[in-house]
Amino acid sequence: MSNVITFYDIPAASIKGGAWSPNTWKVRLALNIKGIPYKTIWLEYPEIEPTLLKLGAKPTDTKVDGRPHYTLPVIHDPSTNAIVSDSYAIAEYLDAQYPDTTPLFPKGSAALQAGFIRAFQDVALSNVRVILLPVTHGRLNPISQDYFRRTREANFGKKLEEFCPEGKEREETWELVRRGWSLVDGWFKKNRDGEDGFVTGREVTFVDVFIVSSLLWFKLILGEDSEAWKTILTWDEGRWGKLLEVFEKWQVVV
Amino acid sequence: MSNVITFYDIPAASIKGGAWSPNTWKVRLALNIKGIPYKTIWLEYPEIEPTLLKLGAKPTDTKVDGRPHYTLPVIHDPSTNAIVSDSYAIAEYLDAQYPDTTPLFPKGSAALQAGFIRAFQDVALSNVRVILLPVTHGRLNPISQDYFRRTREANFGKKLEEFCPEGKEREETWELVRRGWSLVDGWFKKNRDGEDGFVTGREVTFVDVFIVSSLLWFKLILGEDSEAWKTILTWDEGRWGKLLEVFEKWQVVV
Repeated sequence: MSNVITFYDIPAASIKGGAWSPNTWKVRLALNIKGIPYKTIWLEYPEIEPTLLKLGAKPTDTKVDGRPHYTLPVIHDPSTNAIVSDSYAIAEYLDAQYPDTTPLFPKGSAALQAGFIRAFQDVALSNVRVILLPVTHGRLNPISQDYFRRTREANFGKKLEEFCPEGKEREETWELVRRGWSLVDGWFKKNRDGEDGFVTGREVTFVDVFIVSSLLWFKLILGEDSEAWKTILTWDEGRWGKLLEVFEKWQVVV
Repeated sequence: MSNVITFYDIPAASIKGGAWSPNTWKVRLALNIKGIPYKTIWLEYPEIEPTLLKLGAKPTDTKVDGRPHYTLPVIHDPSTNAIVSDSYAIAEYLDAQYPDTTPLFPKGSAALQAGFIRAFQDVALSNVRVILLPVTHGRLNPISQDYFRRTREANFGKKLEEFCPEGKEREETWELVRRGWSLVDGWFKKNRDGEDGFVTGREVTFVDVFIVSSLLWFKLILGEDSEAWKTILTWDEGRWGKLLEVFEKWQVVV
């Protein structure tokens, strides 16, 4: 196993299998769909920056103070010595480097997928963050919690407890989230000949990986027995639960 | 020509050929791409509602006061007696009803296109309306100008002259628009094997029709000799001018 891809992820002991992050899930699902062997190295949040600096990985963003921001996922591919940051870029790298595996960007679909993902983020994810980030915080290992709280509170300019809506406001936020997913459901329904429920019908794409990673975040962070998750499974005639089921064979954590 | 599709459009004598509306252009381009014969009936804004009521066309929206809102484009297809409102629905109808013509929603692309178009509207069109609507007003025939002013001012809650940014604010608005189109350019660039510049590479889709109709609106309303239009042609290494050129053969107004 020394010559396989190394995939860096963030652990949470409170979650079965340890994997919870929607961004790293995209890469795990991509690797599993393609059947490319890999090993996982788990890094707590405070370990990410020093490890990636040592590895020579690129930052994916700039912090509020102007310094580079190092994030996971990252992969190291010993066969090319490539070190790739960012789930989108990793999926593109895997498609280009392993052309005999299932493509996540089938010919002619990459531009359409990019626009779709932008719209998906806007309508299906932007409103839910204020609910899920505080819950995510509580699910992390203690050493990562401090880091997560500090960085998220810097982004929002508020304490986690302050930006998390409660009571009626929380219900209204969930209603906005539900309507956003319902819009996405409407886009899926445009495919009259859809069979397996992928965004293109029969062929899996990065869009499906993106959506399923978001659903896994919801499910794992909220808990599969929670009322909130059970409600999501009733949305849009059960479309999202069915999509998760189709992906079940690719959800293995190694 | 009595048995061909009737296509309803809004005229502007100040524009060569008379066609200017981005929404009706989508249908004209769709019909021209597919090579389906049709005749155009030109309706001034105040004529739209009474004509569509008589025809039995469906409204596409609800007005602020709750009454149904009748808009163009509409087509009447005598071969099926179908009367279809809304450019998106018309394109879907033409694909379904004329399966031997060039599809605008090739198999597996309809859901992706729907998400892409949502994102395109958000990033490339939402900011430009305050600039283009007042110019559009000035280009219409007098009988349509009053209607256009009244309805647009009701939507914005402001006079046309008030919501149109001037001076530095106008420059900043154009800069936002330019950045929006640059994002879309970035999505197109994801297609590594794009050839003819369509969103899927070689195959024309409704997304391309949507984008070109927006570009035609910009070009025809601003004027092709205007500084603003000439500047747009320099954006994104000339991508948008090239896309318009590819569509030139489909721009005929009959």
